[in-house]
Amino acid sequence: MTPELEQKCINTIRFLSADAVQKANSGHPGLPMGAAAMAFTLWSRHLRHNPRNPKWINRDRFVLSGGHGSALLYSLLHLSGYDLSMQELQAFRQWGSKTPGHPESGHTAGVETTTGPLGAGFANGVGMAIAEAHLAAVFNSPEFPVVDHYTYAIVTDGDLMEGVASEAASLAGHLKLGKLIYLYDDNHISIEGDTNVAFTEDRMARFAAYGWHTQTVADGNDIEAIDAAIRAAKADPRPSIIAVRTIIGFGMPTRAGTPKAHGEPPGTEELAAAKAALGWPAEPAFYVPAEVSEWYSKALEGLESQNFGWTRLFDEYKKTNPAKAAELERRFAGGLPAGWDDNLPLYPADPKGVQTRAASGKALNHFAALLPEIWGGSADLAPSNNTNMAGLGDFQAENYGGRNGHFGVREHAMGAIVNGIQNHGGLRSFGATFLVFADYMRPAIRISALSKLPSIWVFTHDSIGVGEDGPTHQPVEHLASLRSIPNLVTIRPCDGNESIFAWKVALARTNAPTAMVFTRQNLPTLDRSLVADANGVEKGAYVLADVGDGAPELILMASGSEVSLIVDAGMKLAAEGVNVRLVSFPSWELFEQQPREYRESVLLLGVKARVAVEAGISMGWAKYVGDSGEVIGIDHYGASAPANILFKEFGFTVENVIDTARKVMSR
Amino acid sequence: MTPELEQKCINTIRFLSADAVQKANSGHPGLPMGAAAMAFTLWSRHLRHNPRNPKWINRDRFVLSGGHGSALLYSLLHLSGYDLSMQELQAFRQWGSKTPGHPESGHTAGVETTTGPLGAGFANGVGMAIAEAHLAAVFNSPEFPVVDHYTYAIVTDGDLMEGVASEAASLAGHLKLGKLIYLYDDNHISIEGDTNVAFTEDRMARFAAYGWHTQTVADGNDIEAIDAAIRAAKADPRPSIIAVRTIIGFGMPTRAGTPKAHGEPPGTEELAAAKAALGWPAEPAFYVPAEVSEWYSKALEGLESQNFGWTRLFDEYKKTNPAKAAELERRFAGGLPAGWDDNLPLYPADPKGVQTRAASGKALNHFAALLPEIWGGSADLAPSNNTNMAGLGDFQAENYGGRNGHFGVREHAMGAIVNGIQNHGGLRSFGATFLVFADYMRPAIRISALSKLPSIWVFTHDSIGVGEDGPTHQPVEHLASLRSIPNLVTIRPCDGNESIFAWKVALARTNAPTAMVFTRQNLPTLDRSLVADANGVEKGAYVLADVGDGAPELILMASGSEVSLIVDAGMKLAAEGVNVRLVSFPSWELFEQQPREYRESVLLLGVKARVAVEAGISMGWAKYVGDSGEVIGIDHYGASAPANILFKEFGFTVENVIDTARKVMSR
Repeated sequence: MTPELEQKCINTIRFLSADAVQKANSGHPGLPMGAAAMAFTLWSRHLRHNPRNPKWINRDRFVLSGGHGSALLYSLLHLSGYDLSMQELQAFRQWGSKTPGHPESGHTAGVETTTGPLGAGFANGVGMAIAEAHLAAVFNSPEFPVVDHYTYAIVTDGDLMEGVASEAASLAGHLKLGKLIYLYDDNHISIEGDTNVAFTEDRMARFAAYGWHTQTVADGNDIEAIDAAIRAAKADPRPSIIAVRTIIGFGMPTRAGTPKAHGEPPGTEELAAAKAALGWPAEPAFYVPAEVSEWYSKALEGLESQNFGWTRLFDEYKKTNPAKAAELERRFAGGLPAGWDDNLPLYPADPKGVQTRAASGKALNHFAALLPEIWGGSADLAPSNNTNMAGLGDFQAENYGGRNGHFGVREHAMGAIVNGIQNHGGLRSFGATFLVFADYMRPAIRISALSKLPSIWVFTHDSIGVGEDGPTHQPVEHLASLRSIPNLVTIRPCDGNESIFAWKVALARTNAPTAMVFTRQNLPTLDRSLVADANGVEKGAYVLADVGDGAPELILMASGSEVSLIVDAGMKLAAEGVNVRLVSFPSWELFEQQPREYRESVLLLGVKARVAVEAGISMGWAKYVGDSGEVIGIDHYGASAPANILFKEFGFTVENVIDTARKVMSR
Repeated sequence: MTPELEQKCINTIRFLSADAVQKANSGHPGLPMGAAAMAFTLWSRHLRHNPRNPKWINRDRFVLSGGHGSALLYSLLHLSGYDLSMQELQAFRQWGSKTPGHPESGHTAGVETTTGPLGAGFANGVGMAIAEAHLAAVFNSPEFPVVDHYTYAIVTDGDLMEGVASEAASLAGHLKLGKLIYLYDDNHISIEGDTNVAFTEDRMARFAAYGWHTQTVADGNDIEAIDAAIRAAKADPRPSIIAVRTIIGFGMPTRAGTPKAHGEPPGTEELAAAKAALGWPAEPAFYVPAEVSEWYSKALEGLESQNFGWTRLFDEYKKTNPAKAAELERRFAGGLPAGWDDNLPLYPADPKGVQTRAASGKALNHFAALLPEIWGGSADLAPSNNTNMAGLGDFQAENYGGRNGHFGVREHAMGAIVNGIQNHGGLRSFGATFLVFADYMRPAIRISALSKLPSIWVFTHDSIGVGEDGPTHQPVEHLASLRSIPNLVTIRPCDGNESIFAWKVALARTNAPTAMVFTRQNLPTLDRSLVADANGVEKGAYVLADVGDGAPELILMASGSEVSLIVDAGMKLAAEGVNVRLVSFPSWELFEQQPREYRESVLLLGVKARVAVEAGISMGWAKYVGDSGEVIGIDHYGASAPANILFKEFGFTVENVIDTARKVMSR
């Protein structure tokens, strides 16, 4: 390949991106125009992938962490031969296109992860590298390196400023993830002006402190220097970051190197002048020179033959390691093995009961023994979250085969890393912390839901049941805020057995995330010979029992720790002659997924006297209790005191439930 | 003071803390026992404060960022002479006490900020130092350094791992906040074990990269070395961090230096053995030797005389700078000057209208000219958030008098810094970003609400109105998730004039935070000669108009960009003979604060046909539309396309509102 042809390829990428932005009259030309040369260098000389087989297990992963530069990625995907037509490039940011404003995994072939919210992609990449390291440790043998690839990213100033990237970078350095190679688009520009307005730290020294290998390239258009740096990065056992000095909007005569290059269409005049300056024909827009197309066609053959080489290796692997090969394929297909949910470790009835976090730990250990793809950990709270998987080893630089990750006190990175592991494939990953700290990782929870990743979120220490740690640690609004996230299912089990079934639901949801919410304190294990089976969790809400002598005239519903409270209140009311329906309501979202007939069979249309009880804010329960109902909730912060005192002081008592029920019935 | 007496003071702090935890049978003895010596050194030799006057403007600020070590702080406050009795210490973590599990500002005198969620206190301290630097620049003259104090913190491994601390540290280094001095409780222990399981970065090199002055002290009980390091930190113009090697749970014979020391009561045996090991009497618990009490009494006199010295200085300042002195006092009292809300810059009716973010910018600039205490900025989105305050200068190391802060792409730190500025006093601070990134700073929003801080949160680019940037940037669930936070008021104005009044509400709320949500796109400016005044915002919801010939038979309600939609639909329905009430509903929380009579005068009890329209998830609206009503919302993610197409595709059309209204009326 001649230097001239390389420049043509780079300018093709540059102007396909700029033309897409200009045609949409919306988007970000600055990053693609500035980073085109380094992206081309990476993709043409290093990235092992197969546009004809975007799900090739052993492909290198590429993350565009600055997702606003999506036009760059779409240009690369189109030229490389992915299923992304010129029509799609020309429909950039339009209704129904495969080229949305920010890259969305699952939506566009070849997009490895959903980026745009800054810092997320940086941390996703760390998750991909963790997945690679773990799968390599589990599946490879010296003669069969079936999992052996790099994870690359282009990261931006904004990514490096975000705390989530700092967290992930520190962990990546600790874990010595040497196959992680990041190109830093060091363009000195942010939206408020020169990055010097807020970002003057010594970035490379910071990354060196994390344990990374750092390099700088002085000219972002010097593809030989970029290439040499990537080669050096591959040779270094540490994760690598290469600061490449680029010019944002390179080529634009008046906007290059300024904030105006970042997020505004160039305008026809500026774009024409940029094309002229770089010797590019003014017309047609979306111009791809024939020799560029030819080069990419040939390159595609080379990429496919790399894939075929791996397939041959894998065929040999299959012969000598049939079980492992089948397991690897099963894992990447994402299915669950037959019988995985047989023989659940259920609890006998027990008034003293169990912490549901302990039941969660039991479920996790049960399933982890059956499903070797389960990998996860906690943000330094494993003993409290009950998420240690006994006997399965710690994932550390010296033991990539371990299945217990230690994220440190880094909730946000944990979330994004778990997502990155799911992006990679081959594992089912979970992250755990206290429910109140779901806030710290909320952006990652959102992306898991938006991207339909089957990440599993384990939140313990729910509600005022936290007790003495006080209101800073008592999640009163967090159930509501999790329920508000589309595609996420939130489950708050009422006892040990509902907790076991919650895990079953989470694992069975292979195309979307699940959040489970567990208690710090013991909850009675309901006697399932007297009330309905705990597998009712799978329907979100179910009738535990109708108590009394006749058709229900009152519905009491609750989730989690308040279910035993309505059971007690219901029994008392029944003894006083009231016919009460008791509903366990662990998950709004699962309930909403049921057919209308089922929903109306649980919440009988004719029974208007309804009380919902939940130790969280009342928001949203009105939909289920209706105009005549009441909610016993806690629409304010908690307090620091033993939990039993808090429940009493805040009205979570049998007496209050009965009084409220009587009030509602009198309406 | 003799070394013996110093040791007695330190052991008093150590065992008051341990006894409090043991009596509560709950809490964290490890940090107080390990960090007692450095805390004592700081408080006895450096901290300028007045326990008799906890709100002394020019006191040094002290933050215990590891809030789980609250017993340490309570012991220091009690001994120093704050209004925190021995009874309160003995009621640690009990109902109604002033000694909750984690420190809460506003709840306990002398607690400067609410800590516990890790990293928050670290970043709050940066906010305090910013406030100090700014107020000093505005109010001081060479002979009158009326604002001239340090901000100290004790920070922990967990704090340093959290991304929010990384963000804040980078900014503090950039801003050269030399009066920020942090002691790092470097105890090598986290909940999952040795910090080496996840945290092996070179911390001091990382802080040096941020531009901090770094030191290490090898022995956390060496008070002379700690003292010397603090003195060196004061002499250095950079922010300082001092890594002090401590032993968690120092003194406990079997638990010191182990994770068990962190968060469990020591137990009577271990506690007795610890006392014996350090030569402390086993009984009584909560023992304070007479000579320790005496020393603290004398120290209190010294502290008071420092305060008096400042008061004399301030009295002189008053004479020569009466206006400035009065202004400083007004600002710290927190009141607003008479007439501050006169002559609001309202908009004339205009069908083309204005982006409400632009109206927000107009309101901000209007109020900033009147209220010099307004200080704030954006997380690198000022041009998009319209938060630049024209002519008021940038806050930079070279210009601490500037009122436009540049937070960089660091939403979480921005939130915690704004809170820290409010903790400090003397300013009204705001932080701005896109609404979708409210998730990144949610922990800080929560603490502002829990702590009743009047922080102002400006969120622009609401809803699918974001358009082409796509679902990663379209906040569909964020209104609901903000509304779920107790004590927070969320306002989504429907036009330019509601936006002006939203700012008025936010500024008038001097004891709680407010979140305002603005559009990227233009909204028509309603003709207020035809509909009710925009000051209805102050009541959360109000009747814009009843249209038609008779008593309302249908209520259409909406917030923000959907209000003009219901107005158009209502006019059409009225033309078709339907009597419609049109309700603008910018804030649920403000509406809930109104008397029942007002609420029922807006949402007429007798009118069951109700439709709510909001381009966000429908959760929570059921309360207002009732069993017979409908919500037109968007219970899924958006898409990338021009906003007008999205509104149409997702059902936000006059036709759909009319069809839905007719359906509801037919019930």
